[in-house]
Amino acid sequence: MKIGVLGTGMVGVTIATKLVQLGHHVTMGSRTPNNHAAAHWAQLNGINASQGTFADAVFYSEFVFICTKGEVTLEVVRMIGPNAFGDKVVVDVSNPLDFSRGMPPSLLICNTDSLGEHVQKALPYAKVVKTLNIVNCEVMVAPSKGGDPTMLLCGNHPDAKATVTALLKDFGWTDIVDLGDIKAARGTEMLLPVWLSLWNIVGHPHFGFRIVGR
Amino acid sequence: MKIGVLGTGMVGVTIATKLVQLGHHVTMGSRTPNNHAAAHWAQLNGINASQGTFADAVFYSEFVFICTKGEVTLEVVRMIGPNAFGDKVVVDVSNPLDFSRGMPPSLLICNTDSLGEHVQKALPYAKVVKTLNIVNCEVMVAPSKGGDPTMLLCGNHPDAKATVTALLKDFGWTDIVDLGDIKAARGTEMLLPVWLSLWNIVGHPHFGFRIVGR
Repeated sequence: MKIGVLGTGMVGVTIATKLVQLGHHVTMGSRTPNNHAAAHWAQLNGINASQGTFADAVFYSEFVFICTKGEVTLEVVRMIGPNAFGDKVVVDVSNPLDFSRGMPPSLLICNTDSLGEHVQKALPYAKVVKTLNIVNCEVMVAPSKGGDPTMLLCGNHPDAKATVTALLKDFGWTDIVDLGDIKAARGTEMLLPVWLSLWNIVGHPHFGFRIVGR
Repeated sequence: MKIGVLGTGMVGVTIATKLVQLGHHVTMGSRTPNNHAAAHWAQLNGINASQGTFADAVFYSEFVFICTKGEVTLEVVRMIGPNAFGDKVVVDVSNPLDFSRGMPPSLLICNTDSLGEHVQKALPYAKVVKTLNIVNCEVMVAPSKGGDPTMLLCGNHPDAKATVTALLKDFGWTDIVDLGDIKAARGTEMLLPVWLSLWNIVGHPHFGFRIVGR
């Protein structure tokens, strides 16, 4: 598939690299053409790896991963615009973390709303799936590194969730739970505070939540 | 030990019954003396089970479980008062669920604060430990019924956490993680929304979160 990855940070680079390894054609998008990190990544990852603006990454793809920092996600998707996204599948990996009050971060949106819901509202024709946001990026693309936790996903479009589930299986996920519509993003985004506490206790980020007793 | 259990609902009855089975002397407390549910419970559970007001349950105990509905927890602890609690160990099992907007409930307090922190502030001499609030009450006292998940606890007093950890082991918990001070209650209380989504999907409440990859 032709896949766009928005964001050039650790999450974007890790997911984009895994997608190229799986044989997909990946365009990494950033605010500016020839962003240093994106250009470097494209150079390292062969002919299936290219880079451009956010709009390029959406335009040249059938499927888009949002790997921006949560605090800029809505600004980025609105800048690209709902018409550019059309009815593509959009995987929102970002978390609405607020670092402005120091560590640990709190959430910018939670409880009666979620970033996932805001992304779906901003892109009304797109099929937004919230997933992968509950583990470290290295675990996202290699769940066995995190003890094979459960992956949770949600979204309003069953066909998009089926497409994303197939890709999650290619990433190595064996236990995937569909929580229902995009409102369930409230719960998965609200896992971040306990994840951050656990990171501090465990001493490394390669862990996750397995839902047991089902 | 002499243990007080505040609350006569499913959580209070389940925990109080388990404590009596473990050989503890338990006083179940409610708003009024001779509350029907508390009197019935005491009658069924033999000479180590008694009941009275909330204040009685605290007065006659070395150790108190708060098993009230989260929406009334602060009213109840303030009514009893910090002097009555003194420096006892207080286990806050309650969750700040807001059912006023219908199902699923949202949280009354979250993100930059938590019910656990409020309870500790309301009872400044007491040693508050937040735990057990992340599973169904039947799993609280029999973790194997929920697939042996991980139990998370937090609080400002290491000695209180050691006492509570010993009791959790008597309940059958084998994997217990201390998240640090009472602020970590933000994270464990914020697990409730995803727990509620999962309950809907799993179809029964006998499940839990195991932290894997450590």
